[in-house]
Amino acid sequence: MQSLLNRQVLLRSRPKGEPKVSDFELAEAPVPPPGDGELLCRTIYLSLDPYMRGRMNDAKSYAQPVELGTPMVGGAVSEVIASNNAAFPTGSFVVGPTGWQAYALSRGAGVRKLDPKAAPVSTALGVLGMPGMTAYVGLLEIGQPKPGETVVVAAASGAVGSAVGQIGKIKGCCAVGIAGGSEKCRFVAGELGFDACVDHRAPDFARQLEAACPKGIDVYFENVGGAVQQTVWPLLNDFARIPVCGLIAQYNATTPMPGPDMFSVLRKRLNLRGFIVSDFAAKQGDFLRDVGEWVRAGRLKYREDIVDGLENAPASFLGMLQGKNVGKLLVRMTTRA
Amino acid sequence: MQSLLNRQVLLRSRPKGEPKVSDFELAEAPVPPPGDGELLCRTIYLSLDPYMRGRMNDAKSYAQPVELGTPMVGGAVSEVIASNNAAFPTGSFVVGPTGWQAYALSRGAGVRKLDPKAAPVSTALGVLGMPGMTAYVGLLEIGQPKPGETVVVAAASGAVGSAVGQIGKIKGCCAVGIAGGSEKCRFVAGELGFDACVDHRAPDFARQLEAACPKGIDVYFENVGGAVQQTVWPLLNDFARIPVCGLIAQYNATTPMPGPDMFSVLRKRLNLRGFIVSDFAAKQGDFLRDVGEWVRAGRLKYREDIVDGLENAPASFLGMLQGKNVGKLLVRMTTRA
Repeated sequence: MQSLLNRQVLLRSRPKGEPKVSDFELAEAPVPPPGDGELLCRTIYLSLDPYMRGRMNDAKSYAQPVELGTPMVGGAVSEVIASNNAAFPTGSFVVGPTGWQAYALSRGAGVRKLDPKAAPVSTALGVLGMPGMTAYVGLLEIGQPKPGETVVVAAASGAVGSAVGQIGKIKGCCAVGIAGGSEKCRFVAGELGFDACVDHRAPDFARQLEAACPKGIDVYFENVGGAVQQTVWPLLNDFARIPVCGLIAQYNATTPMPGPDMFSVLRKRLNLRGFIVSDFAAKQGDFLRDVGEWVRAGRLKYREDIVDGLENAPASFLGMLQGKNVGKLLVRMTTRA
Repeated sequence: MQSLLNRQVLLRSRPKGEPKVSDFELAEAPVPPPGDGELLCRTIYLSLDPYMRGRMNDAKSYAQPVELGTPMVGGAVSEVIASNNAAFPTGSFVVGPTGWQAYALSRGAGVRKLDPKAAPVSTALGVLGMPGMTAYVGLLEIGQPKPGETVVVAAASGAVGSAVGQIGKIKGCCAVGIAGGSEKCRFVAGELGFDACVDHRAPDFARQLEAACPKGIDVYFENVGGAVQQTVWPLLNDFARIPVCGLIAQYNATTPMPGPDMFSVLRKRLNLRGFIVSDFAAKQGDFLRDVGEWVRAGRLKYREDIVDGLENAPASFLGMLQGKNVGKLLVRMTTRA
């Protein structure tokens, strides 16, 4: 096969506080042909997700930081354009951790084949992928929602939050979203069918949230932290569950934010539990079956926020950290070999 | 029967910050004879426990505050000296929530009969009572310790902490205590058989704790909060469990203390869960069977710190909040009718 020129987004410098476009670098490099057992993937959609902010830091975490001068990590949907791996023949569509680049070589680790007839392949990065599964396992395994209870989720218009509230509804709960701005709130309460969505930028946010949760809060799916968390806290009911999935409001903080009030944890017998979607890998079959069925039946809706061109990935990623996207943020590749 | 004069300790004023002896008042009052279904209890031992500090506040909690001018709440072991309740005949020994007083009338709610031949009756307020059961359910139900794991507990020489570490040992864990002062540490590591006990007053406390936990911490039984919590936090392993039982170091705080770092909760997938022993009332049978057996077999040791005279209860209680007791603090009644 002819030699290909790869385009990649590399991590150029580790941000202090809010990342800048200049922390990234667009680079080109030749793509070697696949070796024994390898497949060559051409990226179709790159996923942009909040967790990537953490990988830019040189800090001990559940995952290795991205090395300076190497491509940013990330999940992507690709077409296999050359393969020495029988599990992933040329022409198949796959999802896997192939990073911010136009082409990637893989040995198949973490790669899953997609059936493009079952669902649009882009959903493998959203509602039927990591964000959807994060919502599914976090809410059901840790949140343990019971019919009639109130589930609250922030970043409710995002890929994870939008699924959390809708799965809560499917399980018979009252679902209340929190989002930034009236447009997002209309989308969440209108199109997604949450019982209510409250704008955290409103001056009377605390009062509005309390009014939207007349029976208090039984499950708070935590993916933002910061000021929103502090507003939610007094509304938690005894025995409330708090799956801790993310802290996007704190990712760029350069000083520690105070943690939750321990007296409430004690007096209300709260249960906070941090999790990473991969801790629940054994649930993937259940997830694909249940959420696939809910999506096909129109019970679980999703929106994609698609940006064209790898060169726009850094700015789009920074926008996401500021809450500019509505729905699952994807980069569609525009350059073909 | 002749009319009896009761002696009581009333709550006189609500403390701001650290309580004072003058927040309590010793009073006398006649004891009416028991009415229909009632029993009259003569207190033998009164239990002093950290949770009582919370009842002095006029704050919303899982229990009602003590009203000003009424007896302080508390568990006690008593002898039934007159009874119109067939379940508790005259002459029987009982444990129940009869308060800081020499005599109490009861309808039997929360009262349990004791067999003085099975164990010293005082243990019904300690290792075989509320503190022991708190240790048992908090460690086993929430902490879920597995053989080979490391269990850390602060206030390790106290009624709850001393049982937590010893139950951890029985379950095959490494048990590390934290206590204030070298005398308590010698008691915990020497007599109680913890693997180690670290003095939180030592200038190199953090370094000593790290050295005592070479494999990190899998269960942190939280009953102190504050600075000790902040020292423990960095040593927690991934998937550590934190039963939140008490926060004695924060009970007198007049300004909020910062809660635990939420990034650790997320990255390490920590599980914090507040509990009250009564949430696990269904486990009382298991508790009495298991701990009774361990105590009789000498596998679970306990120490009692006994003060004579109801008039000394306030000062002893304040001393406990400052960490002056070693083992279960009890007041033995000295005035008899």
